Amino acid sequence: MKLINCHRCFAGEQRRYKLESHQLNSSTTVGVFLPKQALGPRPERVPVLIWLSGLTCNDENAVQKAGAQRRAAALGLALIMPDTSPRGDDVPGDPQGQWDFGHAAGFYVDAEKQPWSLHYRMHSFVVEELISQLCTEVPLDDQRLGISGHSMGGHGALVLGLRHPHLYRSVSAVAPIAHPGQCPWGRKAFSHLLGTTPEEQLRWRRWDAVTLLEDGHLRNDCLLVDVGSADPFLREQLRPEDLRHACVRSGQSLELVIHEGYDHSYFFVASVIDRHIDHHARALKTDI
Amino acid sequence: MKLINCHRCFAGEQRRYKLESHQLNSSTTVGVFLPKQALGPRPERVPVLIWLSGLTCNDENAVQKAGAQRRAAALGLALIMPDTSPRGDDVPGDPQGQWDFGHAAGFYVDAEKQPWSLHYRMHSFVVEELISQLCTEVPLDDQRLGISGHSMGGHGALVLGLRHPHLYRSVSAVAPIAHPGQCPWGRKAFSHLLGTTPEEQLRWRRWDAVTLLEDGHLRNDCLLVDVGSADPFLREQLRPEDLRHACVRSGQSLELVIHEGYDHSYFFVASVIDRHIDHHARALKTDI
Repeated sequence: MKLINCHRCFAGEQRRYKLESHQLNSSTTVGVFLPKQALGPRPERVPVLIWLSGLTCNDENAVQKAGAQRRAAALGLALIMPDTSPRGDDVPGDPQGQWDFGHAAGFYVDAEKQPWSLHYRMHSFVVEELISQLCTEVPLDDQRLGISGHSMGGHGALVLGLRHPHLYRSVSAVAPIAHPGQCPWGRKAFSHLLGTTPEEQLRWRRWDAVTLLEDGHLRNDCLLVDVGSADPFLREQLRPEDLRHACVRSGQSLELVIHEGYDHSYFFVASVIDRHIDHHARALKTDI
Repeated sequence: MKLINCHRCFAGEQRRYKLESHQLNSSTTVGVFLPKQALGPRPERVPVLIWLSGLTCNDENAVQKAGAQRRAAALGLALIMPDTSPRGDDVPGDPQGQWDFGHAAGFYVDAEKQPWSLHYRMHSFVVEELISQLCTEVPLDDQRLGISGHSMGGHGALVLGLRHPHLYRSVSAVAPIAHPGQCPWGRKAFSHLLGTTPEEQLRWRRWDAVTLLEDGHLRNDCLLVDVGSADPFLREQLRPEDLRHACVRSGQSLELVIHEGYDHSYFFVASVIDRHIDHHARALKTDI
């Protein structure tokens, strides 16, 4: 684990690390914001919000554009922002050279098909390696984890939260791809990563928030989801109403707010990030 | 004047415009944040904070990284963030191809030497054209202007504020190049743009906060300046102590704070931006 850089930020530190990932079979970068409580001569183990970013992003977009550090600093929360896929010359990208699959588009699943399965294991990386590796260097409380994200990363947060309710105490998402098995971005990614035979498509259900809810993966706490009404991807790719219906049918508690006039950009993320940080801080019992 | 894009942001709008500038003899881009008070069926003319960015930046860096919109929205302040130099194939850049002069390095002066004088007139662009052009399209109150900036843009804010005390009601700067006539970045730029004969060097004094103060250009209000103690450019390029001494000697009121451990990055800007916005909002009489 190597520290790439470190900037003082809101009395804490915004760091960038390079990790060697066994799951990804490559090195990977991660942004780490530590509030002042985690620094100094008597550092405390601080609760953690993991933020998963969206298509075309790496670990730096949210670090630079979400404006999350101010509120996280005020509440004593660490922010962990991993990259969105494995990277490197030996990591295969999209066969057609598009931006919606491959590099920066790992979709937070564990691939089962060649050649993807050698590297594309973002789910197991986030769940098994990310926090445990960071804990060797920085004082994170791995018993107090929340998870959130934007777009593809919102999908990742919902799926990881529903699959691992005891690992993540709180879950939220901004403009998530809520039903990837039924939208073009998700179908393309799952076809490559998981396969397209009827049997393989059955396994897609474990990587989709809507089908996870249909299959009984529920949480006791409320999912917080914000979407913009002017998001150009709203109906075809994000499908928040599918999530709403699945929550109603399954009995999962959901706070879904459609924000009038907001689009898919980081300007929307920044506009709602404080309420997501507050949601997680309440669950993680910081002094909110 | 052409609207390039528009994003809803903190209940206001973050827009990007393209302007045709007579002074710059080129088109130029500008970021405009409008709080909700300036929008809707009964828009109000809102007070304005002009933000000048630093070397290597264009109009988008502060828009995306400073996190200024949240507090500006809360106080009903517009943010106007112009580019840092003229641009275009016919605009000459640095003869040596370096990043510290030419494109993205206009230094907010009016050039007097060929070939720069045909385009490099950022001072007159900001003072004479920027707000008056924007006022034809958006409801800005041109009687309530404040000016601030970062690094080269902090130099620009101090110089414009000292030269035009009645135009700008409030002045602040983050990590400004406080004494450009005595630092490598400033001397390189001024040599190209203004010339190097003894007579030409005398004119440098009108583009340097320290020499403007020495020459009696004072303001009745207090200059707010923040600098990071870990800024790698602190001693050689920024020289805040020169500004402090010039303020003491001239009687100019100054609040200069050296923030322990902060560097020159936008993480520092974001960490102090709220206090700059508050400084300007008080002077511009918003409901702070």
